[in-house]
Amino acid sequence: MTPSPYSREGAFFFPVRIYYEDTDAAGVVYNANYLKFAERARTEWLRSIGVEQDAMLRETGVGFVVAHISIDFKRPARLDDLLWVETRLQELGKVRMCMRQIIRANDAVCAELAVKVASVNRAFAPVRLDGALRDTLARMLYPS
Amino acid sequence: MTPSPYSREGAFFFPVRIYYEDTDAAGVVYNANYLKFAERARTEWLRSIGVEQDAMLRETGVGFVVAHISIDFKRPARLDDLLWVETRLQELGKVRMCMRQIIRANDAVCAELAVKVASVNRAFAPVRLDGALRDTLARMLYPS
Amino acid sequence: MTPSPYSREGAFFFPVRIYYEDTDAAGVVYNANYLKFAERARTEWLRSIGVEQDAMLRETGVGFVVAHISIDFKRPARLDDLLWVETRLQELGKVRMCMRQIIRANDAVCAELAVKVASVNRAFAPVRLDGALRDTLARMLYPS
Amino acid sequence: MTPSPYSREGAFFFPVRIYYEDTDAAGVVYNANYLKFAERARTEWLRSIGVEQDAMLRETGVGFVVAHISIDFKRPARLDDLLWVETRLQELGKVRMCMRQIIRANDAVCAELAVKVASVNRAFAPVRLDGALRDTLARMLYPS
Repeated sequence: MTPSPYSREGAFFFPVRIYYEDTDAAGVVYNANYLKFAERARTEWLRSIGVEQDAMLRETGVGFVVAHISIDFKRPARLDDLLWVETRLQELGKVRMCMRQIIRANDAVCAELAVKVASVNRAFAPVRLDGALRDTLARMLYPS
Repeated sequence: MTPSPYSREGAFFFPVRIYYEDTDAAGVVYNANYLKFAERARTEWLRSIGVEQDAMLRETGVGFVVAHISIDFKRPARLDDLLWVETRLQELGKVRMCMRQIIRANDAVCAELAVKVASVNRAFAPVRLDGALRDTLARMLYPS
Repeated sequence: MTPSPYSREGAFFFPVRIYYEDTDAAGVVYNANYLKFAERARTEWLRSIGVEQDAMLRETGVGFVVAHISIDFKRPARLDDLLWVETRLQELGKVRMCMRQIIRANDAVCAELAVKVASVNRAFAPVRLDGALRDTLARMLYPS
Repeated sequence: MTPSPYSREGAFFFPVRIYYEDTDAAGVVYNANYLKFAERARTEWLRSIGVEQDAMLRETGVGFVVAHISIDFKRPARLDDLLWVETRLQELGKVRMCMRQIIRANDAVCAELAVKVASVNRAFAPVRLDGALRDTLARMLYPS
């Protein structure tokens, strides 16, 4: 069974089990799918601190979009592996925040990501982060 | 290179090249992806007879949703294969239409689908097909 | 947080949280993705009764492939929904088994599937289910 | 219909039509899918200069894996858009090559990628590019 997410030392750890859908004919996890795992982890990290993105968009008209991703592929993950996605907030601006995410299988690093997320309105134009939300996020900051 | 789609004897033939993203660790095309190929083919079949679904939804508030799919997996397709998706309209009701789709690699059948599509409004409630659209579709009917 | 899977009255219940990756521009879960959720649930159901498919393939050269799926789409699921996939084994033959799977959101049925799975060798030719495995599966039979 | 790929001034241009499968509930193309489009384009670029990756892996035991991707998301692409992926080879080392890829919709840039690809053996260990292959690739170099 897939274990539960947890937080430790300013980081959020989220488990991802690898199914056939995640793999490719090279026998390993397909590269684009690491971006999906990273987004699941960011979503659950936000949910864990009280931010429901869907409700936020409905109520305030503000959503998050990914502006930049840099990802290093270190070691392939495989079918049935249990991955852990570690997520830390490293920078928090007025519109953007930067997160570092490390994806491991059996304690070995499979992929490392730097992700910049921007807050935007329904027309995808940048807008300032709401004050209360920004305060909540600021408490999660963990500069490297 | 991927060749062009064409119509013949009441059927629409659409090519799909298989990339890593489509395969899984068993070395073959992952089962759910055949549904994606079938939908690409239905979309291009509709486009070829003048129906742009996105414009239709914007202008008339009517869209198509899949109500039922039955799919037989006959033979696995593989990386780099060039598939052909054959699409025929077999039944046309007031709200629903039924299509038969056959997916082949090198003339061998990989998968056969029966697909029921319903016309719905923005709230996903069934609505009658527009008269002009229904006339266009009726000309494509090819009962088996 | 996503809750844990459980078994009750011969059925296995597996939770699936809906993320952006699962949805499409119609604002709902994309149809092919229900097949992914159903396979995750079958995989975890097998794991829960002691069958690790990857190890089985490595050790015995036998794997499972999907031979047929019939799926009814009843009601769209949406972003952030928590789905439950109910899985029951309904028929067990020498090579094939049939499962019924019901996917619900907030107790409303989103999709119902009938899935036929066949046991095959590495060349994807049908082979008989191993005796011990078949005995394990037979204990899970729950004809409707 | 989707037009044909072409080469111009050292770059390879590959078309991608956007279907429902590519979009998400925000009404735009889901971020991870740009990586799929970029890989389709790299595959067809290699095919266009005579490199069939599947045959290469079978015959020489050497394959390509993605080692690093940096991607900027500039502007969302949408359902039914016809994207063009521009691919240029910018650096060619003994084991690695770097490509720049720009994805546009209606001449506006949607995403820009820098992709590092490494040649590896079946155990995913780095190996030198084959001499003839390297010569073929060297003719495609287009430093910015």
